[in-house]
Amino acid sequence: MIRFDSDYTQGAHPRILDALVRTNMVQTCGYAEDEYSEEARALIRKACEAENADVHFLIGGTGTNTTVIAASLRPYEGVLCAATGHINVHESGAIESSGHKVIALPDVNGKLTAAAAEAFCAVYDADPTKEHMVRPGMIYVSQPTETGTVNSASELTALKEVCDRHGMYLFVDGARLGYALAAEGNDVTLPFLAKTADVFYIGGTKVGALFGEAVVIAYDALKTGFRYMIKQRGSLLAKGRLLGVQFREMFTDGLYEEMGRQAIEASRRLKAIFEGAGYPFACDSPTNQQFPILPDEMLEKLSGDFAFSFWGKADETHSVARFCTSWATTEEELDALETALNAPV
Amino acid sequence: MIRFDSDYTQGAHPRILDALVRTNMVQTCGYAEDEYSEEARALIRKACEAENADVHFLIGGTGTNTTVIAASLRPYEGVLCAATGHINVHESGAIESSGHKVIALPDVNGKLTAAAAEAFCAVYDADPTKEHMVRPGMIYVSQPTETGTVNSASELTALKEVCDRHGMYLFVDGARLGYALAAEGNDVTLPFLAKTADVFYIGGTKVGALFGEAVVIAYDALKTGFRYMIKQRGSLLAKGRLLGVQFREMFTDGLYEEMGRQAIEASRRLKAIFEGAGYPFACDSPTNQQFPILPDEMLEKLSGDFAFSFWGKADETHSVARFCTSWATTEEELDALETALNAPV
Amino acid sequence: MIRFDSDYTQGAHPRILDALVRTNMVQTCGYAEDEYSEEARALIRKACEAENADVHFLIGGTGTNTTVIAASLRPYEGVLCAATGHINVHESGAIESSGHKVIALPDVNGKLTAAAAEAFCAVYDADPTKEHMVRPGMIYVSQPTETGTVNSASELTALKEVCDRHGMYLFVDGARLGYALAAEGNDVTLPFLAKTADVFYIGGTKVGALFGEAVVIAYDALKTGFRYMIKQRGSLLAKGRLLGVQFREMFTDGLYEEMGRQAIEASRRLKAIFEGAGYPFACDSPTNQQFPILPDEMLEKLSGDFAFSFWGKADETHSVARFCTSWATTEEELDALETALNAPV
Amino acid sequence: MIRFDSDYTQGAHPRILDALVRTNMVQTCGYAEDEYSEEARALIRKACEAENADVHFLIGGTGTNTTVIAASLRPYEGVLCAATGHINVHESGAIESSGHKVIALPDVNGKLTAAAAEAFCAVYDADPTKEHMVRPGMIYVSQPTETGTVNSASELTALKEVCDRHGMYLFVDGARLGYALAAEGNDVTLPFLAKTADVFYIGGTKVGALFGEAVVIAYDALKTGFRYMIKQRGSLLAKGRLLGVQFREMFTDGLYEEMGRQAIEASRRLKAIFEGAGYPFACDSPTNQQFPILPDEMLEKLSGDFAFSFWGKADETHSVARFCTSWATTEEELDALETALNAPV
Repeated sequence: MIRFDSDYTQGAHPRILDALVRTNMVQTCGYAEDEYSEEARALIRKACEAENADVHFLIGGTGTNTTVIAASLRPYEGVLCAATGHINVHESGAIESSGHKVIALPDVNGKLTAAAAEAFCAVYDADPTKEHMVRPGMIYVSQPTETGTVNSASELTALKEVCDRHGMYLFVDGARLGYALAAEGNDVTLPFLAKTADVFYIGGTKVGALFGEAVVIAYDALKTGFRYMIKQRGSLLAKGRLLGVQFREMFTDGLYEEMGRQAIEASRRLKAIFEGAGYPFACDSPTNQQFPILPDEMLEKLSGDFAFSFWGKADETHSVARFCTSWATTEEELDALETALNAPV
Repeated sequence: MIRFDSDYTQGAHPRILDALVRTNMVQTCGYAEDEYSEEARALIRKACEAENADVHFLIGGTGTNTTVIAASLRPYEGVLCAATGHINVHESGAIESSGHKVIALPDVNGKLTAAAAEAFCAVYDADPTKEHMVRPGMIYVSQPTETGTVNSASELTALKEVCDRHGMYLFVDGARLGYALAAEGNDVTLPFLAKTADVFYIGGTKVGALFGEAVVIAYDALKTGFRYMIKQRGSLLAKGRLLGVQFREMFTDGLYEEMGRQAIEASRRLKAIFEGAGYPFACDSPTNQQFPILPDEMLEKLSGDFAFSFWGKADETHSVARFCTSWATTEEELDALETALNAPV
Repeated sequence: MIRFDSDYTQGAHPRILDALVRTNMVQTCGYAEDEYSEEARALIRKACEAENADVHFLIGGTGTNTTVIAASLRPYEGVLCAATGHINVHESGAIESSGHKVIALPDVNGKLTAAAAEAFCAVYDADPTKEHMVRPGMIYVSQPTETGTVNSASELTALKEVCDRHGMYLFVDGARLGYALAAEGNDVTLPFLAKTADVFYIGGTKVGALFGEAVVIAYDALKTGFRYMIKQRGSLLAKGRLLGVQFREMFTDGLYEEMGRQAIEASRRLKAIFEGAGYPFACDSPTNQQFPILPDEMLEKLSGDFAFSFWGKADETHSVARFCTSWATTEEELDALETALNAPV
Repeated sequence: MIRFDSDYTQGAHPRILDALVRTNMVQTCGYAEDEYSEEARALIRKACEAENADVHFLIGGTGTNTTVIAASLRPYEGVLCAATGHINVHESGAIESSGHKVIALPDVNGKLTAAAAEAFCAVYDADPTKEHMVRPGMIYVSQPTETGTVNSASELTALKEVCDRHGMYLFVDGARLGYALAAEGNDVTLPFLAKTADVFYIGGTKVGALFGEAVVIAYDALKTGFRYMIKQRGSLLAKGRLLGVQFREMFTDGLYEEMGRQAIEASRRLKAIFEGAGYPFACDSPTNQQFPILPDEMLEKLSGDFAFSFWGKADETHSVARFCTSWATTEEELDALETALNAPV
């Protein structure tokens, strides 16, 4: 079985695993207050050109999204996001479990547009009974989006302007940020994010680490009490050093960027393989996830040797599948897929 | 100023107020364990032909919706409702504040259809990653709906069948139930509701009482611990007798039905007045709320002497307004409206 | 049966009920934005000598406590209170249901002392792992306390100083405030409370109204978004006028003070009756609740004709009972109690 | 600096780390549905002699406690525990953040006694206003306790009997379970726990793993929907295989027991070192944590070369410190401590 069903089918990138092995017997204090974590925070601040940002290490995406949102909003505030947003559909109600409404708006290519957010806020602002409604307090976007697309710098700037006009925070979920940074045509950098978003995170779990997400808090008012929130929400790792060691390695000698690039190169070939076999795509993704539309028969045939995700029905006889690449995707795996796709039935 | 902006612009129906005055100096115990409340519960059970139902008195709609939903669902479950549903748009995130997602589906004439609910559940059931999603645990409908329409008995039965197929409860918000019961063409009775819904309530606040909602719990598993929930959610009135006295009066000599009929008659005339003046409606409501579409100029003119609700823009120069009637609406008030609508500008 | 089991055994004081009757057919808008409510707010601001305070009307004590606390604290903060505090023992976990820990400290005569609060905060501040603990964000006291005692002005000032030293709010639950204001020896006034507490409330439910609590927010940062919170927590009464009318009456011609005085006078006689019959008290209460210690046999005998609350066992054969007076307590009721207490067994 | 401040100062036991290295490049699916996790679950079921138990892998203690408690209780229920219990003092209000009260009772040697729990429940059951209180729905104990003591089989059985009498679950937090299993005099085994507790967990984070807690659910009604809860609470690791691989290794060839024994042997010598130097202990711990009482001067001196935890003041000039051992504690580290303790000042 060759797996393309997610970007976390292996353990960690060998360099990251080696770093864990090398430091395994060193004694440190807990809860990410050790020297490795301190160094990793410094490296991330530098990469973001954000001297004054707070950097925190959490374990996984759902815990990070919940902690950030619960730490930022007042009880009667909700978070705007694309209807396809991860917090809206794939976190088992984690945001609501912390008391906050996810206000889902129709997306365009997986993106929440500034126009849609502005229109929503305008209607809300004009409503004389707004105290009976949930106040929008934050915009959540993921970069890349759930369908693999990438917000441009100007799109994020426009969202930030909506936030500023309406008293909201901008939060960027970067669970797969490495793939957006390496995408063709991308113009969003870490320093840009640190300047534009009030809070964002750099994903490790889906980009080569065993696990781990680095939250960068740029906006001062969001810094207070954040470690209490991490602890309360179960996201404060006792052996926090493991996060420090991994992120220190990822931000040394460009490993994070390198892993992104490797996945994007593999994804480009993956795309070409489906195109070559004559299949269209549900969306045009420049990142590490591809969403080809295939006859159900072909998916059935492939499923014997390949793992991928079912993404939805396209019509009676076709479905959208999701295939992911990562730093670990090999030429041999792609060759095998190409052969299978082009084999006579 | 003549008010049509809600159905609670006055205090209570004179008979209800008299009952409160008559019993004011009688000593009772608190928290709706007094004799008045006990009698009221018996009257409601009888009217519902539901000997074994539990009946509880709460104060207002939002508190009742939150209490019922929080008492019924497990933490990872959500509640399906029409996108226009009260719990989705007009309760300041009360349901989410208790940890539960409101899963909003497009409505047809204000109604959540069984087809839409079934389709949603079918997709959910087929999803191999459903543990990453919110489990639909309840269907919420209001009777009448937010746009004044009324679910038929067969529509409610169809929703209940969806519930049974997918392990969900059916909850009917009857904040304005009196108006549905009196609507032309309505075939849903209290006994039918007690047989079909797992839990529903009979609204007093919007149907002639000072305040108060009577929750009828038909399904045994939902009965346990409900009084704890009422207390915890701030909906257990210390002087619970006030609820008992009011509902006892409403369910004596047909007062509840009478108040519904009065409002519906007034609403019928209200509708005729707008029709007579040549205005269309955003929806065809047989209950006590009418949603005429008027030129903004006319609305501006009316607003000097009449209070009504702004419901949304219809086009550049027209808006949808909401006008409500109640037991207290007088012929004189309607006459004044008719005159104003037909006066030369 | 003569009831001394609570201070809300009747409906409302006749003047309050009359006011409701008089205004019943006047049309107003909802949600306490009507003129009666506006006037009541002005009267309360004046009585508190607090021009800039926000005044809100909520329905009952539990809803008010939850709304105030949830509106004030960040998710990782808790509220300090006496172990006997109402929020700690008699609200079915309402505060915890909004996510906040009630940090209960041993009380002295029902009171949380400044020394106890300071000692707790000092230990907390010195703890290097405080991020693993709940941050104390508020001190909650009720005036009078659960055992009928009254905090002096200097005691409240000392608590406020602890709050200021440790970044906490001071919140005074005044569900029975009228009885404290009228107590012998009391030196705490409404203007003092408005100056000393960040937020407090003036109770109506237990002091002669049908229901209702007037929250006075003195501290600016607590004002934002409070109406959203009231709505979300189910405490925004649709017919908010009912609260306005009642509080307007209570703050006209000294009715609130008068009701307090009547209850205190009745309580003084109640106390004398038990003393005269030779019974001691579990605590020395200058307010409207008395806690005599009686032989279980006597309690058994009394329970045939009198309702009172069981407060706890004193020893094998004696129990503490709670007897309450109110504006409605009559000389005849007290006479009957005296006779019963002194009757030969 | 030699660290005795916690039992997680290193990474993982070399065998566990090797297992992660060996399996790093194997492709698997996510979320602990892989073969390693399946094997680990089977091994744990076998070790517990609990064929029908559900086994789930979560990341850390706080997340596990919150998930188990939130999955088990209804909204108005709370959890009984010793005042020193981890959920009461060291989880930043995580349990309350999920809506539930932690009902803290005085402990004896760190233990919640059956007598204390029974007495609490008896008072609760006798209270006629119990609906105004939090219903005790679960007993939480940790094994070993926060002060290193161990509940005997008969003590746990007695607690379970209290649970059965009062409709509560018994939940055993085994974050350090390996040390209890290896303690001198311990008579509580994994099969005993699986028979006695409704749900318990086997800690990895503090017993030699990088991280990870294995929850064993014995009681059927608690099994439903548990994976939704894990996901919602942010405790479902994307690369769940990491948990499977670690627990598979821990439950192969007795590694879990071996790590426990190593720590206990080191702890015994640690205890002897303090005793030899003439210092008393705040409690008599047979597990891997020791709580010597030392002059503040000596603690100050030690703190230059040794890390340990400050546990509280004993008197004006002495404090209680906590020293922990683990599988990784070396003879050299203990020698150094002994030398330092006995060195002339």
